[in-house]
Amino acid sequence: MAKKQQNGNRVRDALRAGDELPDPASSPVGPEKKAKGGKKLESAGEQLAGLQEALYAEGIGGGQRSVLLVLQGMDTSGKGGTVGHVLGLVNPMGVQYAGFKKPTAAERKHDFLWRIRKKLPSPGHLGVFDRSHYEDVLVPRVLGQLPAAERRQRYAQINAFEKELTDNGTAVVKVFLHISPEEQLRRLTARLDRPEKRWKFDPSDIDARRQWPAYQKAYADVLKRTSTAHAPWYVVPADRKWYRNWAVAELLVETLTEMDPQFPEPAFDVDEQRAALQGVGVPA
Amino acid sequence: MAKKQQNGNRVRDALRAGDELPDPASSPVGPEKKAKGGKKLESAGEQLAGLQEALYAEGIGGGQRSVLLVLQGMDTSGKGGTVGHVLGLVNPMGVQYAGFKKPTAAERKHDFLWRIRKKLPSPGHLGVFDRSHYEDVLVPRVLGQLPAAERRQRYAQINAFEKELTDNGTAVVKVFLHISPEEQLRRLTARLDRPEKRWKFDPSDIDARRQWPAYQKAYADVLKRTSTAHAPWYVVPADRKWYRNWAVAELLVETLTEMDPQFPEPAFDVDEQRAALQGVGVPA
Repeated sequence: MAKKQQNGNRVRDALRAGDELPDPASSPVGPEKKAKGGKKLESAGEQLAGLQEALYAEGIGGGQRSVLLVLQGMDTSGKGGTVGHVLGLVNPMGVQYAGFKKPTAAERKHDFLWRIRKKLPSPGHLGVFDRSHYEDVLVPRVLGQLPAAERRQRYAQINAFEKELTDNGTAVVKVFLHISPEEQLRRLTARLDRPEKRWKFDPSDIDARRQWPAYQKAYADVLKRTSTAHAPWYVVPADRKWYRNWAVAELLVETLTEMDPQFPEPAFDVDEQRAALQGVGVPA
Repeated sequence: MAKKQQNGNRVRDALRAGDELPDPASSPVGPEKKAKGGKKLESAGEQLAGLQEALYAEGIGGGQRSVLLVLQGMDTSGKGGTVGHVLGLVNPMGVQYAGFKKPTAAERKHDFLWRIRKKLPSPGHLGVFDRSHYEDVLVPRVLGQLPAAERRQRYAQINAFEKELTDNGTAVVKVFLHISPEEQLRRLTARLDRPEKRWKFDPSDIDARRQWPAYQKAYADVLKRTSTAHAPWYVVPADRKWYRNWAVAELLVETLTEMDPQFPEPAFDVDEQRAALQGVGVPA
């Protein structure tokens, strides 16, 4: 237990967004090799499943807390794969997934946080956002459609929104999946070469790739302006899928370990219920 | 492929609801032993994950089809465990879980299918109902609150509703998890004995157990009246969790294999996109 507490921030501390981005193929903390990473993911998965069950049970018992994992990153950075390999480790009953595409005409009529709020996780749940409100400070900025003043206003709105969430018991874990342009080229090429992967490709991915430096600049600004004490950003080197999976799983395990979700106390007398149960016997 | 087609209904045919319920600890089809069952679940899981990905891709490409798994059964029959062990085998992006508890005051003001319709799976998704509209012909009947005429009316409404779903491309897989009263006693006792399981126990579980014969009668009637050609019931012997998991996974695999979901044809010229991608090169 003491050890757990001592190391409770190890991965979060090592991956917290700083002034410099790590090498997308590096291991700032944790396993260096795939074989080790796979084993460590397995044990992180068991921890995560147990912690998630406790959080779910706490929610059933009336608890209000939840976790929101926000996944951001360039196309092919592995948002969907992370959902499959990390969130896939826990009971789907406790997971709430929401993907955010380009806002629809109806959504654009509202404040940019409107559609986000509707998808926040319920108490006891592990929510995951595959893209998020951060798209609304990234895409329009790169397209030259977001004046600096409005951008600053959105940052302030995001920070206030996330403060509201954390104040109300939702731990917000924001992850930037950081890949290299070389790795993206390999992955986009694979999506074109393999027929069963083509559905993941969209011609607009190439437009975004053309804007790579502008996106990197926009991301750097986002990481700087919206990494707060209540909701810091983590940068996960994501060129190696096994490292990415392990790192995101560990970020969730550390977060949930700190939350220390509690199985609720029964609202009934256990001995009384045991006696009642025995009294029923085995019906014919 | 020929073999697949020949055996494509093997598990569905064997588990389809008939006049008699199978022994809850039997294997009407498939593995007899736990070790074999575990291995077979693993391979069914791989098939299921692949089929689910194709269905999801089909949905992204504009396809309207989906799957709805309806789980019913007495308390402790393993609805939640099935979700964890079977739906947990596929990417959570493609799974939509909905649990139905006792209807709220607001829900009771509407037709009983109102709250159900709101939770139907989106195109390309694998929806799972943990309890369902069937609660509304089971519970009120056992409590003596559903006159026979109204019950018959609800059966007709359910059959029409499910016909509408299947006509519109949603495969409906209805599973009755069949446990013995002896096994339920063991599981309820375990929930009381183990503090980390107590949150799953509700004193009303004992009331329902007291009504065991009435529930069995109500279930038999439901299986008879609502097992239709478009949406038959399957009875899964569920005293052994490994058998239950394997059987439900196989029912889904057979259903999806028959649907034969298709990766969508690209809406772009692959060679053109490949050239465009190479043209961008590696941004600095």
